[in-house]
Amino acid sequence: MSMVWTVYLSGEIHSDWRERIETGVKALDLPVELVAPITVHEDSDDCGVAIFGREDNKFWHDRKGAQLNAMRTKSLLAGADIAIIRFGEKYKQWNAAFDAGQAAALGIPYITLHPTEHDHALKEVDAAANGVAREPEQVVDALAYIIRGDMPKS
Amino acid sequence: MSMVWTVYLSGEIHSDWRERIETGVKALDLPVELVAPITVHEDSDDCGVAIFGREDNKFWHDRKGAQLNAMRTKSLLAGADIAIIRFGEKYKQWNAAFDAGQAAALGIPYITLHPTEHDHALKEVDAAANGVAREPEQVVDALAYIIRGDMPKS
Amino acid sequence: MSMVWTVYLSGEIHSDWRERIETGVKALDLPVELVAPITVHEDSDDCGVAIFGREDNKFWHDRKGAQLNAMRTKSLLAGADIAIIRFGEKYKQWNAAFDAGQAAALGIPYITLHPTEHDHALKEVDAAANGVAREPEQVVDALAYIIRGDMPKS
Amino acid sequence: MSMVWTVYLSGEIHSDWRERIETGVKALDLPVELVAPITVHEDSDDCGVAIFGREDNKFWHDRKGAQLNAMRTKSLLAGADIAIIRFGEKYKQWNAAFDAGQAAALGIPYITLHPTEHDHALKEVDAAANGVAREPEQVVDALAYIIRGDMPKS
Amino acid sequence: MSMVWTVYLSGEIHSDWRERIETGVKALDLPVELVAPITVHEDSDDCGVAIFGREDNKFWHDRKGAQLNAMRTKSLLAGADIAIIRFGEKYKQWNAAFDAGQAAALGIPYITLHPTEHDHALKEVDAAANGVAREPEQVVDALAYIIRGDMPKS
Amino acid sequence: MSMVWTVYLSGEIHSDWRERIETGVKALDLPVELVAPITVHEDSDDCGVAIFGREDNKFWHDRKGAQLNAMRTKSLLAGADIAIIRFGEKYKQWNAAFDAGQAAALGIPYITLHPTEHDHALKEVDAAANGVAREPEQVVDALAYIIRGDMPKS
Amino acid sequence: MSMVWTVYLSGEIHSDWRERIETGVKALDLPVELVAPITVHEDSDDCGVAIFGREDNKFWHDRKGAQLNAMRTKSLLAGADIAIIRFGEKYKQWNAAFDAGQAAALGIPYITLHPTEHDHALKEVDAAANGVAREPEQVVDALAYIIRGDMPKS
Amino acid sequence: MSMVWTVYLSGEIHSDWRERIETGVKALDLPVELVAPITVHEDSDDCGVAIFGREDNKFWHDRKGAQLNAMRTKSLLAGADIAIIRFGEKYKQWNAAFDAGQAAALGIPYITLHPTEHDHALKEVDAAANGVAREPEQVVDALAYIIRGDMPKS
Repeated sequence: MSMVWTVYLSGEIHSDWRERIETGVKALDLPVELVAPITVHEDSDDCGVAIFGREDNKFWHDRKGAQLNAMRTKSLLAGADIAIIRFGEKYKQWNAAFDAGQAAALGIPYITLHPTEHDHALKEVDAAANGVAREPEQVVDALAYIIRGDMPKS
Repeated sequence: MSMVWTVYLSGEIHSDWRERIETGVKALDLPVELVAPITVHEDSDDCGVAIFGREDNKFWHDRKGAQLNAMRTKSLLAGADIAIIRFGEKYKQWNAAFDAGQAAALGIPYITLHPTEHDHALKEVDAAANGVAREPEQVVDALAYIIRGDMPKS
Repeated sequence: MSMVWTVYLSGEIHSDWRERIETGVKALDLPVELVAPITVHEDSDDCGVAIFGREDNKFWHDRKGAQLNAMRTKSLLAGADIAIIRFGEKYKQWNAAFDAGQAAALGIPYITLHPTEHDHALKEVDAAANGVAREPEQVVDALAYIIRGDMPKS
Repeated sequence: MSMVWTVYLSGEIHSDWRERIETGVKALDLPVELVAPITVHEDSDDCGVAIFGREDNKFWHDRKGAQLNAMRTKSLLAGADIAIIRFGEKYKQWNAAFDAGQAAALGIPYITLHPTEHDHALKEVDAAANGVAREPEQVVDALAYIIRGDMPKS
Repeated sequence: MSMVWTVYLSGEIHSDWRERIETGVKALDLPVELVAPITVHEDSDDCGVAIFGREDNKFWHDRKGAQLNAMRTKSLLAGADIAIIRFGEKYKQWNAAFDAGQAAALGIPYITLHPTEHDHALKEVDAAANGVAREPEQVVDALAYIIRGDMPKS
Repeated sequence: MSMVWTVYLSGEIHSDWRERIETGVKALDLPVELVAPITVHEDSDDCGVAIFGREDNKFWHDRKGAQLNAMRTKSLLAGADIAIIRFGEKYKQWNAAFDAGQAAALGIPYITLHPTEHDHALKEVDAAANGVAREPEQVVDALAYIIRGDMPKS
Repeated sequence: MSMVWTVYLSGEIHSDWRERIETGVKALDLPVELVAPITVHEDSDDCGVAIFGREDNKFWHDRKGAQLNAMRTKSLLAGADIAIIRFGEKYKQWNAAFDAGQAAALGIPYITLHPTEHDHALKEVDAAANGVAREPEQVVDALAYIIRGDMPKS
Repeated sequence: MSMVWTVYLSGEIHSDWRERIETGVKALDLPVELVAPITVHEDSDDCGVAIFGREDNKFWHDRKGAQLNAMRTKSLLAGADIAIIRFGEKYKQWNAAFDAGQAAALGIPYITLHPTEHDHALKEVDAAANGVAREPEQVVDALAYIIRGDMPKS
């Protein structure tokens, strides 16, 4: 099959989960294009004022950045075949749940990726997901199965 | 105008914000129907197994409940004219952000309601909102303006 | 809440499951309108030729009836808030699975109702459902919870 | 015309109908990309637990697999120009009827492929189809006509 | 069932087919609201210039009328549960076929009503229909069956 | 016909065109519900800060008001059967053209209402309209024809 | 601009209008892919029975062919950027008006191509068009302008 | 990432803002395809009559041109990932606001580009935008960030 699958990687930006998925995808030579929000934290905070002009008020400083980032994330998410929604150990990560809600409403299937300790708090988000992974390598295995029918080694 | 506005009240279930909005709406005699998820915490957790049968595994216990609740919330949210998305001081409240994402993708305008301390963490959710309120009474004022053009007293 | 919920009852026409749901809904005085395909078997087979003219060929005899029935079922399903998809012990019941597929694509949440012996064969249909019931009374309990937050007695 | 037609082959996995269509498409050099669910029966049953972790309960074992498979089938079906829905002599094959329902609701035209003995039971599914074939070679002929206007040799 | 079915009556304006459907619907006391384009021929031709100002050029005279009529027909067709598309013995009646095309694309089921002499020329329009009637009374019978499951007398 | 037509009146707020339409609709007893944005100029400017809190920066002062107003206008426009888009003699009135663009994309037919001097500048907006009126009374006449088929007196 | 425009050529199959458009498009080297229904009259009539099996009844003979053709035409029309709808001097050509109705409902802009003698009968179809041409060369000129901004020579 | 972003440049045609964006995009080697309406003023006015035949009445002269132009702009706008909506110092520029309204309703994110003097008059259009730029170079910077995460130099 000649299709390239676009996979959107949403959520946590403080661990190496995106790199681990990328490594796995390359190792298996999967026809996958990984896309993601901008993951440089300070840039994603300050991009709006850096480009469109400074704001004295932190609220509008954040607003300008969030709306600029949304032009990237909305286009990439809406064009994805599958989304991965990652919740790390810490932080609120409401934007990840926000992306999951959009994916659900747009009919884009998604896999959540989070430790078991979040299971109860994420039950609504998981209930609309097509899979719940604990490790990035499981996401790679899932993609290999979805795209080529490969069962995991091990 | 004869239209009744359906307003969906999503999020936190540990404070009296829904009651305060209901009180305000009644005091002003606004043509508003307030709808909401089931807010009895233990019932929303246990409804699935109570109705469809018990599960040994907590994960599937939660899943059954979350999917049952989703039949209510999805229908009510999709049928709403406006949504209010509330984030309280505590808890993860990922389901509120998930509802906001669905509202955004469905084109349903929403107002967020949260303390300023959450502003930075909620900047993506706020950036897609049509208003950010701090107190339930501001939501009532907003509804009075949206529906009747009434400006707030004082 | 003043909303009346429209519930579409799809599938098997050889047992009294629709009557049991209707009885339960009335007993609880739920604001539910139950809708369904025509359940008189011979009429649903012969309606097409009885109205639009006879056919020598059984295939087209069936086609005329199926397309006439579809005008009813399509309108009722598309207008429903929730669908119940019933698979009985016997028969192919492909039209029930067909309705489930339409509901899934239209974003209408549904509950399947079938004995455990069908679990494996129905796993794809169940996987897109928001609940799996074994008895009609569980469907009534689910509706009572979805609409009013009532937990089952007993 | 430079377009490549994507054709989704849904349903029965116990006979060689997909291979016969593939052979015919290649023989005619049709610009067709054939896509399909994973057809290795045991893998499609066990993929979920193999990748996301084992389940004691067969019901959830099946659920995990079905939801994983759905990420493949939903993407491929939604992206197809035409679907072929195959019902073999045996088995329930409810997933095939489920796919047909989705195709109908998504506006994707489909051809059913089944023996005459199923005609009455499949009348609703056939009534929404754009063609009913008995042999895989008829599907190939139909594709040759649809794409290039070629009439069958015979 | 409490639903009122809206039925749009498109096409020929030179015979009494709408009246015959209306008579039949009343005789059976069906919960049907019949809607239709303006059927006074000269008014539907001249309404545009009568209201928005005269045109020297017949082409734009017609354009103004057609666009004004379209505000009525588009709203009524889009809001209908079922459409009836009538082709009489004479005239081009392209607007009827145009309405059928819109109904098909909008997913509104329709019944065509025309004499057998038009069968070949209307084969594409009939192929997307859910029924082909020859007499208005068959349409009434079809509505009685669709709505209440009543089989035709006689 | 029992339908009540919802008509959205967008645009200029400095003349009495809405009152003239309302007068005409009442005089003819048309089943029309007229809806509109808030037309008290200073309120529509200041509502955002009055309800959600003051802003030092005029840009964000305006933003808060515009987003609050949009919750009203978006809901009313999206629910309308027909929109009237009014451009007066003066002012930029970009919000009227913005509403027209939304109506066009949503498939809501609209009539523009403006003096001939704006014809060239409004040619793109007019080209997507279903009628161009010069006086509010023509809008009333159009509604009377659309709804009841009444031709204008005189 | 690198985009290739897909243009669907619907309607009359008895004159050389498609060839004239193709000639013009090639002469100007426009980045256009022309697509069309099968234009061999007898094949488009008989394809259904030739592939799926003979029918004694002419009505179902036609039905099978029309539904097979619809798989081609629906896919090509829905994927087109622009449609050209041609009505020749003779014949009913209801399928052309049917295609126009679908294009209108799908939001695909179209140009009609017909002699002035049909103007009145086609006023509804023309009123939803973005242009009315009399000669195929005008369609070529329109495409050259739409795609490259070229004004016609002469 | 291999995606090419399509950016639609709507609005003012009297200054060099499009060229400045094009220069910036090339300088940074961004994977962007810029698309735009025809910007030769007299051609965009006269194209309709030049191709489809002259009109004595200026109103219909304009109509023919506007509808022809709309075939280009509608296709390009609907296919864009991002739109830039430019309002210059002078002119009504209602077509720019009309395009913004369409973009908003279609869910295509857009950036407005206009001097501060228009801020109040454009508050509704800006309130639905994802960014407000003053200079074309800011648009280039925004695209560089959206596509590659590049922060502006200096």
